[in-house]
Amino acid sequence: MAAINENFLLLQSNYIFSEIDQRVDKYQEENSEADIIRLGIGDVTLPLPKSVVDGFKDGVEDMGNKETFQGYGPYQGFEFLVQSIIKHDYESRGVEILPKEVFVSDGAKCDTGNIQEIFGLDNTVAVTDPVYPVYVDSNVMAGRTGPMRDDGKYGQLVYIPCTAENNFIPALPTEKVDLIYLCLPNNPTGTTLTKEELTQWVEYARENKSIILFDAAYEAYITEKDIPRSIYEIEGAKECAIEFKSFSKNAGFTGTRCAYCIIPEELYGYDQEGNKHSLNSLWYRRQSTKFNGVSYPIQKAAAAVYTAQGQKEIQANINYYMENARIIRESLEEIGLEIYGGVNSPYIWIKTPKDMTSWEFFDLLLNEANVVGTPGVGFGPSGEGYFRITAFNTLESTKEAMERISKLSF
Amino acid sequence: MAAINENFLLLQSNYIFSEIDQRVDKYQEENSEADIIRLGIGDVTLPLPKSVVDGFKDGVEDMGNKETFQGYGPYQGFEFLVQSIIKHDYESRGVEILPKEVFVSDGAKCDTGNIQEIFGLDNTVAVTDPVYPVYVDSNVMAGRTGPMRDDGKYGQLVYIPCTAENNFIPALPTEKVDLIYLCLPNNPTGTTLTKEELTQWVEYARENKSIILFDAAYEAYITEKDIPRSIYEIEGAKECAIEFKSFSKNAGFTGTRCAYCIIPEELYGYDQEGNKHSLNSLWYRRQSTKFNGVSYPIQKAAAAVYTAQGQKEIQANINYYMENARIIRESLEEIGLEIYGGVNSPYIWIKTPKDMTSWEFFDLLLNEANVVGTPGVGFGPSGEGYFRITAFNTLESTKEAMERISKLSF
Repeated sequence: MAAINENFLLLQSNYIFSEIDQRVDKYQEENSEADIIRLGIGDVTLPLPKSVVDGFKDGVEDMGNKETFQGYGPYQGFEFLVQSIIKHDYESRGVEILPKEVFVSDGAKCDTGNIQEIFGLDNTVAVTDPVYPVYVDSNVMAGRTGPMRDDGKYGQLVYIPCTAENNFIPALPTEKVDLIYLCLPNNPTGTTLTKEELTQWVEYARENKSIILFDAAYEAYITEKDIPRSIYEIEGAKECAIEFKSFSKNAGFTGTRCAYCIIPEELYGYDQEGNKHSLNSLWYRRQSTKFNGVSYPIQKAAAAVYTAQGQKEIQANINYYMENARIIRESLEEIGLEIYGGVNSPYIWIKTPKDMTSWEFFDLLLNEANVVGTPGVGFGPSGEGYFRITAFNTLESTKEAMERISKLSF
Repeated sequence: MAAINENFLLLQSNYIFSEIDQRVDKYQEENSEADIIRLGIGDVTLPLPKSVVDGFKDGVEDMGNKETFQGYGPYQGFEFLVQSIIKHDYESRGVEILPKEVFVSDGAKCDTGNIQEIFGLDNTVAVTDPVYPVYVDSNVMAGRTGPMRDDGKYGQLVYIPCTAENNFIPALPTEKVDLIYLCLPNNPTGTTLTKEELTQWVEYARENKSIILFDAAYEAYITEKDIPRSIYEIEGAKECAIEFKSFSKNAGFTGTRCAYCIIPEELYGYDQEGNKHSLNSLWYRRQSTKFNGVSYPIQKAAAAVYTAQGQKEIQANINYYMENARIIRESLEEIGLEIYGGVNSPYIWIKTPKDMTSWEFFDLLLNEANVVGTPGVGFGPSGEGYFRITAFNTLESTKEAMERISKLSF
């Protein structure tokens, strides 16, 4: 008799975005004339830049010719892309990364979801709260969390609260933790850490031989100075951190699928006898067994992101979204809402007015302004009383949404 | 202190294709003039068919236009592809499959490697021997196999020997097994099962509430009648089988990456209390948490495979490879080698002459004919004394390789 993985039964049954879809669909059915503006899901809307489309097409063209056809590619990605990543994302910031430390993949969601496989089940895992649900759910499925308690937390996870009270800056754990997920700039709060603040985390991890799983998917949205764009800008981070990057949010690859992660050679995990093992080798083994590389034309498209023209084009798109973010911030501040983020990230994190719950505020915006956002509680218990709005819609729709919200009285 | 997943330490240290590469590289270094012909790895060589390239390019074009741009796609694949799969691969064979039963992915390797995640660790897993290493290694990593014994088998796996003695037809397990990996047409042996033979497996699985993980990646190479092209052609299979299909070998997608699996709605696994749970729902949860869909242009390319022109073009490519297979079969038979496969699959499975080991035969072909194949022992203990040659090289190189081998005396 085939037995299921019962850890799956410990997952929350309603994934936040399904619940949102259901409520929106119901509202739309009952109000067919309503023009609903979606500022909920973190999905880009601008088309791929021309240079990326051209690189992509060149790759497809290559696949149609006998001389340039590509079968199975290298597990870690093609040299041309790996070298571009190293040069533009690391060398330019004074960070030396070796080709064998780069793993090109089909998404940061896949990477951050799968990375836990190379670690044992007995590790204590820490997440900031609110948190990108994939970090939690992938550990639930693996059996590291135990069941969810009444307070909405999994008993065996360590939650690090990030709220207005601590200005969303995660405090170092007071207990020993082995794996730490940090997403900076943060999804959903938009928080960043300064070099000094991040250095404390690196020092904590080195002292405790912990591993920081550093999700830098929103790095391209950083506008302020002194905010590290890679954790490896911090001395010693190569001994304690895996970094995840994506082309989804900087270059519009959410539907194209390409990302990468960095696993430095000097990064080790330990067996029960205290022997150290290269995490780079373990991940290579994982990827070569369960993954077959990223489509060649997509890697050509990703490489085009790093050309001078590509960089110019993606920056224009980022600026477009960040102008939306500015409009959202200023509009909502003007009507007296307490808002965070939107400066170094495409997410604006709103404190709900009058102690409304996240879902109450969701329903209010949906019903009264026909605007959809994401209830903060969907990101964890400390997200209750907050609400996320994204800057990824069109300028026109963003403006229209803000006009509608500005007419509401809270 | 971050602990590693120690199951990884139970993996064999040399993945077969790495070892091959090392030996070939060494030979090439020492014999720089040698013109080595590779008939080892199962990778296609013909470029993508024109209609597929056109569909792919249309998809890329869509990504560059605001009106047709695609962000995150549906987790299970776009409707246009899912419907084509259902119509061409199932309806045409009298099998009814629902859209929600189709999961489009980036590869059958990923799917067959990841599927074990939804099952508990206590299941008894059966594999045919020789076997595609991914089935074994993904279960080693998960902790279902225990360590490898001296006989080259993992103690907690059930191996079903497939050798010349039983004409490579796997016998039903004599003990109870919960999960059964079947690859048909088989990689590496090229074996197929008739409807009657496969029916016995379906009956076994239904009686024991086992799940058959049916890898049909080579289905397009079937030339004989009465060989099922889908396990769902067998009555009752929807209650006991997951089917994996790929565009890699039929349409040349090894470097493009697209595949799908079918998880019927009536397929259940059980918890410890004997309650049944939908495997379709569990896999949906797995995919929606750790995967973000296949690139939209690639799904457009895959959909083009199903057009009339696409079908004509991929059939021409399959015929090309199968002509190679015929040449390999006939050449090797003529010099007195005992060979199998190559009729319903692109793989020819050779019994090594004079009781040579797989690696001895590998070295002989490399040194004396400069031809590279794959030692059968790399696929499991019952592969010892066998050798795999693939039909995926060019016609010219295949002929040349056969001429060289024909001059050898065994």
